[in-house]
Amino acid sequence: MADYTFYTNPMSRGQITRWALHEAEAEYDQILVDWKTKPAAFLAANPMGKVPALVHHAGDKDRIVTEAAAICLYLAEMHPEAELLPNDSEMACYYRWTFFAAGPVEQAITARNFKFEPSPEQEPMAGWGSFDRTIQALDGHMAGVEWICGDRFTMADVYVGSTVDWGLNFGILPPLPSFAAYAERCQARPAYKEAKAIDNALIADMKR
Amino acid sequence: MADYTFYTNPMSRGQITRWALHEAEAEYDQILVDWKTKPAAFLAANPMGKVPALVHHAGDKDRIVTEAAAICLYLAEMHPEAELLPNDSEMACYYRWTFFAAGPVEQAITARNFKFEPSPEQEPMAGWGSFDRTIQALDGHMAGVEWICGDRFTMADVYVGSTVDWGLNFGILPPLPSFAAYAERCQARPAYKEAKAIDNALIADMKR
Repeated sequence: MADYTFYTNPMSRGQITRWALHEAEAEYDQILVDWKTKPAAFLAANPMGKVPALVHHAGDKDRIVTEAAAICLYLAEMHPEAELLPNDSEMACYYRWTFFAAGPVEQAITARNFKFEPSPEQEPMAGWGSFDRTIQALDGHMAGVEWICGDRFTMADVYVGSTVDWGLNFGILPPLPSFAAYAERCQARPAYKEAKAIDNALIADMKR
Repeated sequence: MADYTFYTNPMSRGQITRWALHEAEAEYDQILVDWKTKPAAFLAANPMGKVPALVHHAGDKDRIVTEAAAICLYLAEMHPEAELLPNDSEMACYYRWTFFAAGPVEQAITARNFKFEPSPEQEPMAGWGSFDRTIQALDGHMAGVEWICGDRFTMADVYVGSTVDWGLNFGILPPLPSFAAYAERCQARPAYKEAKAIDNALIADMKR
């Protein structure tokens, strides 16, 4: 058995986890989860019934991680030799922008998808304030750096980069120069290419 | 100057950060931010204009952290002597539930506040699925543990505990036994009491 069991669906946030697994060079067994029939072992691991979910067979006890961003940071910690962890001076950006993508950006995108926009009175209660303010803040950071933590790729880029890449592909994020250039840098990563090739082949199989 | 400059408002998620600062025994200068007149130094640190924001004066360069959960995890890393970091076997729960609170729980609460509930067709697109499913998943974990990572308090408890404590106080989370007992354990922490006393005194001043 490989170190990790990876529950996923190729058309899901599981794509983020696969990229992270390949960046960390982790060995994994994959179990594909259908939207309709979900295996009992999967539902036991994640009662939310959401993919991705990762089970780490670590010694005598299995450890379960869910939430795509949490899985990224966990894998960075478990595979320090992959050098995806931040050093002291990179740590503020590492946590700040990972949570910014998992929180305000995710909420801004969801609200837009569902055609729900907070009124000016509601904005202070909404963690993302407004779609435009959230996008501007991310653009303000990305316009001045190559990667989230500066000039070096870290695991934060797998999560934030996936969000930007996906948001541009689906036309939800505006095609700002800083976003487009960042997505291109992400797409050039060998681990990104490996992971996408696997998920794209699985998607092609499903459509056959 | 203290190591940290802490931009906050006593009636905000800044309460989470203050508790984290006291758990880490960090020295900080506080700058109160009014909703209407926001200092330029604060807006430079956080273009989102949201509190809390933390500036760490680390050697020759200032490091800025925003997002309450990110600030918690950053402080745990900067103050390892406070023993708020997870060990290897605690790390899966540490990241999983911190991101679960910052993501699905935050989204479920916001959606409920704004009276927006996804329809069954929309649920797969909503990261939190539904309010009830999110609450059940958190209850399922908290019913079996004393703290997020098991039997030991970690920085994850400052963030998740604050969410549960706040959610119960405002009647947004249901008063389940697991939640009520967890909030009580959090309230008994000396650092929680110190932080609340400061914020409550500031709130009383503002109302005078």
